[in-house]
Amino acid sequence: MRATTIHAPRDIRLSTVPDPTITAPTDAIVRVLAACICGSDLWPYRGENPIDEGVTIGHEAVGVVEEVGAEVTSFRAGDFVIVPFDHCDNTCPHCLAGVQSACDHLGFTTSGQAELTRVNQAEGSLVKTEGTIDDALLPSLLALSDVMATGWHAAVAAGVRQGGTAVVVGDGAVGLCGVIAAHELGAERIIAMSRHADRQALAREFGATEVVAERDDAGVAAVLELTGGVGADAVLECVGTDQAIRTAFEVARPGSTVGFVGVPHGVELPVRHMFRRNIGLAGGMAPVRRYLPDLLDRVLDGRIDPGRVFDLTLPLDEVAEGYRAMDERRAIKVLLRP
Amino acid sequence: MRATTIHAPRDIRLSTVPDPTITAPTDAIVRVLAACICGSDLWPYRGENPIDEGVTIGHEAVGVVEEVGAEVTSFRAGDFVIVPFDHCDNTCPHCLAGVQSACDHLGFTTSGQAELTRVNQAEGSLVKTEGTIDDALLPSLLALSDVMATGWHAAVAAGVRQGGTAVVVGDGAVGLCGVIAAHELGAERIIAMSRHADRQALAREFGATEVVAERDDAGVAAVLELTGGVGADAVLECVGTDQAIRTAFEVARPGSTVGFVGVPHGVELPVRHMFRRNIGLAGGMAPVRRYLPDLLDRVLDGRIDPGRVFDLTLPLDEVAEGYRAMDERRAIKVLLRP
Repeated sequence: MRATTIHAPRDIRLSTVPDPTITAPTDAIVRVLAACICGSDLWPYRGENPIDEGVTIGHEAVGVVEEVGAEVTSFRAGDFVIVPFDHCDNTCPHCLAGVQSACDHLGFTTSGQAELTRVNQAEGSLVKTEGTIDDALLPSLLALSDVMATGWHAAVAAGVRQGGTAVVVGDGAVGLCGVIAAHELGAERIIAMSRHADRQALAREFGATEVVAERDDAGVAAVLELTGGVGADAVLECVGTDQAIRTAFEVARPGSTVGFVGVPHGVELPVRHMFRRNIGLAGGMAPVRRYLPDLLDRVLDGRIDPGRVFDLTLPLDEVAEGYRAMDERRAIKVLLRP
Repeated sequence: MRATTIHAPRDIRLSTVPDPTITAPTDAIVRVLAACICGSDLWPYRGENPIDEGVTIGHEAVGVVEEVGAEVTSFRAGDFVIVPFDHCDNTCPHCLAGVQSACDHLGFTTSGQAELTRVNQAEGSLVKTEGTIDDALLPSLLALSDVMATGWHAAVAAGVRQGGTAVVVGDGAVGLCGVIAAHELGAERIIAMSRHADRQALAREFGATEVVAERDDAGVAAVLELTGGVGADAVLECVGTDQAIRTAFEVARPGSTVGFVGVPHGVELPVRHMFRRNIGLAGGMAPVRRYLPDLLDRVLDGRIDPGRVFDLTLPLDEVAEGYRAMDERRAIKVLLRP
């Protein structure tokens, strides 16, 4: 099949690789209808994560089931499915506690930016839709495989509540989905920290009531001024850098929680500040499967439209250009069509 | 007045210093009936915190109001009061949100191990009892000024719930009070991590259902075995060292929260483990005033008896011996009578 592979920093190629096959009775193979590039794909792209030369890349996908293993009974060839980036059996103690991202049989989508991808725990992981899917819905359904569920997890972990004030640190696709989540969960004020006009505009359309364009100390000061010196009731940290984490803790009010979903890179948590101000940290890798049924309903009902984070669509052949566009911030998020 | 002062590591003296006076209309002066030595006093005693030579020490006290400032209307000379180690106005936004330890007018008891001590925000901080206090209740009331409220905060921050499993890391007075708190909050299983026979026995009397004497990897393995490999639903970290924090995160199940109340010393939070396993951190310096009315009821009703953590009572004159006894772990906690 045709699949995206990474060979070195900034060396992304469309290659021909063997088709994935059923390797366990719990597997399924999905033919990808739409995939995309994630902010976290930029870590290896920029050389900040190690690279296994020539490995396939991409963990977000929606598509149609091609083949299932012997133990997969709820899905069959032809089903349209959303593929969570993190695969789970949905029956182990961690899954039953709503932490599917710590499943005893955790797996990951590893060839999302390709024609076919394997799902390790298909029965527990996949969610299907009934009937035919309107092509216009594809971007929003694709967003559910990671960024929308991840932004939702940030809001849940941060304890966003009806009537409160939420700050979203990060204006990437996850941060923007965090704005959607904070809005759906009833935050009265949503302060988006964003420097880019296009992302600010989208954040406002998603429900942000205020935008803070300043960063670091000036950004913290601006949020504190907006909150009467008190700080925010909930903070969504959607980046994963030390700078973003520090900003998140500085704008959080005592007793509140920073919900973090950006994969931490070079982060040193400010433990004494957390202790002194009683600011908690919760979150982590999103248990996508936990939120999928609810989020799918919200998309199908037209209540949320996270697919709007995709501002560039490219054929899979042009995946390298997609990485460049995201790396240079010419695009918020790139959708790929195999 | 006679007051405990610290001059250098292991140099604790009973000195004569000027009496504290009313310096602001919100102050009160309390004549100390009972004071004690805290695990956190051992940090400067052991030279692990900087020392201002000759400064008074001690932050836990109960006593009788001696004098109040002009703006203190709810208390008068003769009232028996519990003095929270952290003073608060109990009216600012942080106090109203239950985080009195981040009060806009935060103050601290600084001469607890003395004949008299000043309370900076008397109206907001103090809690009094009606009528005469039975001397036998004094230790438990004294425990409310810090350790019992701090152990309670650990349990609340960790999200201890009816029917769950809680692990308490640390068998000092705070950890033992954490066992009381977990028991009162309905934990079905309480695993106390303790190496000392006397403390293990007290933990069991306070409600611990199991004791793990091993430390580090062996301790973690023992807790995981007790919890079917899953980990605990809630973990109370009552020490503040890097080792204790690491143990806490290792025994916490995915999706759970470590409630931390030990002042962090040399702690580096395991951020990637927290992210990967979705284990949160909450807590910090305890908002004693928040819990005081409820804890006072529990003591007066005889439901809890945290004063049992005091296993050595000394006259204030022998405070230096009290520090030695705690430093050498000959005593869990030392009560001082001025």
